[in-house]
Amino acid sequence: MAPAEPGQRVRVRLLVAYDGTGYRGFAPNRDVRTVGGSLTEALERVLGHEVALTCAGRTDAGVHAWGQVVSFDADPDRFEPDALRASLSAQCGPDVVVREVDPVAPGFDARFDATSRTYRYSLLNRVVGDPFTRHTSWHVTAPLDLAAMQQAATALVGEHDFSSFCRRKLVTGPGGGQIEASRVRRVHRAGWSDLGEGRLRFEIEANSFCQQMVRSVVGTLVQLGRAPGREPHEAMVAVIEARDRAAARTLAPPHGLCLWEVAYR
Amino acid sequence: MAPAEPGQRVRVRLLVAYDGTGYRGFAPNRDVRTVGGSLTEALERVLGHEVALTCAGRTDAGVHAWGQVVSFDADPDRFEPDALRASLSAQCGPDVVVREVDPVAPGFDARFDATSRTYRYSLLNRVVGDPFTRHTSWHVTAPLDLAAMQQAATALVGEHDFSSFCRRKLVTGPGGGQIEASRVRRVHRAGWSDLGEGRLRFEIEANSFCQQMVRSVVGTLVQLGRAPGREPHEAMVAVIEARDRAAARTLAPPHGLCLWEVAYR
Repeated sequence: MAPAEPGQRVRVRLLVAYDGTGYRGFAPNRDVRTVGGSLTEALERVLGHEVALTCAGRTDAGVHAWGQVVSFDADPDRFEPDALRASLSAQCGPDVVVREVDPVAPGFDARFDATSRTYRYSLLNRVVGDPFTRHTSWHVTAPLDLAAMQQAATALVGEHDFSSFCRRKLVTGPGGGQIEASRVRRVHRAGWSDLGEGRLRFEIEANSFCQQMVRSVVGTLVQLGRAPGREPHEAMVAVIEARDRAAARTLAPPHGLCLWEVAYR
Repeated sequence: MAPAEPGQRVRVRLLVAYDGTGYRGFAPNRDVRTVGGSLTEALERVLGHEVALTCAGRTDAGVHAWGQVVSFDADPDRFEPDALRASLSAQCGPDVVVREVDPVAPGFDARFDATSRTYRYSLLNRVVGDPFTRHTSWHVTAPLDLAAMQQAATALVGEHDFSSFCRRKLVTGPGGGQIEASRVRRVHRAGWSDLGEGRLRFEIEANSFCQQMVRSVVGTLVQLGRAPGREPHEAMVAVIEARDRAAARTLAPPHGLCLWEVAYR
């Protein structure tokens, strides 16, 4: 199958929600079930040509999304937004729902045009679980000091090297050799909400995130909330400044995490 | 395995929440996976004697519960509420969660002492689905007239013969022959809430319910909401007064239904 011919293309933006429980993440991968793979297959069936997706956030296995943004090129002769939305949801659903389908400017790129991403992490902090949120919330039975976790979270705001919270990634450097990708990110806001009955929500917005960053941040905050010292803010600063993966050892499970919203200029 | 010996029994009340998606209803049944069957097996493993459960509402396959109440007898030597709660949730979970375990008066009966049951039915009324509520909400894309459904719901309140909404059930009569069980029930309240973004909730409280009654009531109300006539209240009265299963043809799917709460004297 060939891609849509140049000069006969329309750039399309999808807004996609998914329950990531049954998927090995977003990024298409020939051997396993991924959200991007399912979407690509459905799009190619409907449009009759090859499709290459770009997404705003490459969510890991088991991570959810409410506002994932995806862009690709379609043959305008076969592109009808409402019909495509219905057809994609019917083919990929019910755990993947295409919320919106829109034609956009030809240069639009879901990944590089995004100015910020917002993630939410849901936590149930009480002894008794909840069968209805077991796939979307991390159940922590040990008592947590929410005030300490809130103070610690404020240390995240601003531009920092988040190496303590991220997997290393090699990229090709200017000289052609392999160098480590930068893990400097700018966090716009980060904080906890108490939704009652033990339901806690962490929300964080940053220009972008490196792999496992939110889960590692939440794991570290929860560790501080279980055994709070006198200065949780300073403790978090110390973890950030260590720039060492070993300083943030706890990785929160993927099922509490959701890519909530992506902002564009 | 023998039951706990008389004179050496404590009557126990459980408050149980479950996601009914993976179960063939509550009532224990040797050949299929049921919530009551799982609970019975776990209880017998922990207590070391035979256990016979009584429940407040025998939910059907795929129906959920937040506040199911169960009673049974246990050997007091082996009964420790906190340990039993944790052990049952660990064995039956994560889709069955035992919220509370309490010793109660010896005569307590989860079914016959209940003075009312409250059910909730969740509905998503918009074009675009929601992957996170797909197992707990009926997705209806056709526009519904909520005011008409609200007016129609008021016709349910009071004591009525609900034969139009219930499966027939034969019971042994006073003469020993098979007679039809009464389908007269007293509805204390019934109404819709608009939770925003197309999320609708129907809540109904009655002294008790016959089989499929809530799903049949919701199916009928939704049918009236799709094509409201000028007098939805009168239309609902007519369905009730027909006392004929054929008058209420639409059965709402089980996954939107949840046994919310059971009240006792």
